Amino acid sequence: MPECEVLRLGHRPERDKRITTHVALTARAFGATKIHINRSDSRIVETVSDVSEKFGGNFVIETVSNPKAFVQSWEGLILHLTMFGVPFGKRLGTIIKSKEPLLIIVGAEKVPPWVFEHSDYNVAVGNQPHSEVSALAILLSNINPEGYNQTFEGGLLEVIPSSERRNMISKK
Amino acid sequence: MPECEVLRLGHRPERDKRITTHVALTARAFGATKIHINRSDSRIVETVSDVSEKFGGNFVIETVSNPKAFVQSWEGLILHLTMFGVPFGKRLGTIIKSKEPLLIIVGAEKVPPWVFEHSDYNVAVGNQPHSEVSALAILLSNINPEGYNQTFEGGLLEVIPSSERRNMISKK
Repeated sequence: MPECEVLRLGHRPERDKRITTHVALTARAFGATKIHINRSDSRIVETVSDVSEKFGGNFVIETVSNPKAFVQSWEGLILHLTMFGVPFGKRLGTIIKSKEPLLIIVGAEKVPPWVFEHSDYNVAVGNQPHSEVSALAILLSNINPEGYNQTFEGGLLEVIPSSERRNMISKK
Repeated sequence: MPECEVLRLGHRPERDKRITTHVALTARAFGATKIHINRSDSRIVETVSDVSEKFGGNFVIETVSNPKAFVQSWEGLILHLTMFGVPFGKRLGTIIKSKEPLLIIVGAEKVPPWVFEHSDYNVAVGNQPHSEVSALAILLSNINPEGYNQTFEGGLLEVIPSSERRNMISKK
């Protein structure tokens, strides 16, 4: 599978703080290596860095001041997740076989037209309105089945799966 | 597959408004028939009803004043989605074959112990922290593969999937 990074567009700190956090944590848990956010938001950086410190791995979160220039300079495939796109399944084979890094763009509300124009693929997880968090999870789990079961090295905490209760151990 | 309903626990109107909306829209788009929310929040009811009016279907959103009593009186299987649970794949076969209605519980932050105790299954989509929105999408799409491609009757708008642009038509 290709290396995957996520670009979160249209983030508005007051309105989108928690959704963008869920997008970032989903990106991390489902196997993406980095998220780029179009506006700096220290609370999200803090939450995501805190999760990485506690649960391990090398997930990176960073701010891009000019997302259009960033997209234009991306060396690899660009996929835009949108409810207006074609079914993602139609592009999945090509994406999985690709050796180029994949940039996945998820917007908040309406994205500017250049996003459609500069993306190699404008694809949908169904054409009903739902959530960029859901769409990202479904896409990443199709690119990397059970990627959400990967292990992360170097964390402080580990969940011990239980059918009965919360159980977490300290690793250090 | 069983009929699925979702119970959103621990909703705090100020903090969780948008996440709970995404949980509700994911439930609808991925094939659940109803969401129950533990606190009344007219803005969420309005957003979700508005989506149903525009995009069709019979999805129901309602408030339960006593979630514990509601869970205790549920006639069917109860599944609690939690990062502390066992891998959901271990219970998937039983759930898909079941003819009883399935109640899926998703909490915001920490849930009270009775949720673990009253659930038939406490299951996880991976044991990393990510999002109840992602977890619900993955679970529902495993119970009902490509349920997100279902059609909804009676809406006013329909997306025409495009690889190039936003395209939506009015049906009335």
